Amino acid sequence: MTAYDPNNIFAKILRGEFPCHKVYEDEHVFAFLDIMPRVPGHTLVIPKAPARNILDITPDDYAHVARGAKKIAMAAMKAFNADGITVQQFNEAAGGQVVFHLHMHVMPRHDGVAMLPPASRKEDVKVLEENATKLIAALKAG
Amino acid sequence: MTAYDPNNIFAKILRGEFPCHKVYEDEHVFAFLDIMPRVPGHTLVIPKAPARNILDITPDDYAHVARGAKKIAMAAMKAFNADGITVQQFNEAAGGQVVFHLHMHVMPRHDGVAMLPPASRKEDVKVLEENATKLIAALKAG
Repeated sequence: MTAYDPNNIFAKILRGEFPCHKVYEDEHVFAFLDIMPRVPGHTLVIPKAPARNILDITPDDYAHVARGAKKIAMAAMKAFNADGITVQQFNEAAGGQVVFHLHMHVMPRHDGVAMLPPASRKEDVKVLEENATKLIAALKAG
Repeated sequence: MTAYDPNNIFAKILRGEFPCHKVYEDEHVFAFLDIMPRVPGHTLVIPKAPARNILDITPDDYAHVARGAKKIAMAAMKAFNADGITVQQFNEAAGGQVVFHLHMHVMPRHDGVAMLPPASRKEDVKVLEENATKLIAALKAG
């Protein structure tokens, strides 16, 4: 497997070198909105540890990402009045991965509404800000 | 959310009331081949705990499922000489869920080979047996 590239865009976000719409952070994980959401509220949960994907991440860190995804899923159901949640996690280009810092997609879903194809369009910053605010409020409400 | 139904098909598999192509089991999780694989080696990792999906599972059990998925992913890369892994986990019908016992899909991928749509066709039992044997061997080899 290719080695972890510390200059990937998510590593830059973690280091604060690149902006993002952050919604959650703890000791092990960081979560922010996808700027090309497949559904409103589409969130990425990433480990703080430098891991390319499921193949090189430690089992503990992968478990931390899963815990983060559950937390986001619970909040997203409330924040977006969702009917369900789709979780996806892609590994290597063959597995659908585009950015090579491990990330778990958490996508709130609504009955009868399909997801957009990946990377369909860049969302308006105002919409991202509003959705981040909603999600942060739901996370705080527990 | 609808309550957990203890007579769903995966609960029956866990209780040994329905057959499956088991590949892995530990204290917390159980893994077996999807009988309608989207790719060869398509495996489902499920918690032993009765959980409908990400909304009612405990954070600990969701973390256990993630650890199981990583274990299967590592083995599947070797067993199927894969180039990548796609992980998916669907919650409620709106999120793509069909069987209402939480399951994480682990799908070995190959460059340039698309996944079949969900539930495209039932795989031949002989093929499932061969793929289970390969995956079990890779899990044992570590």
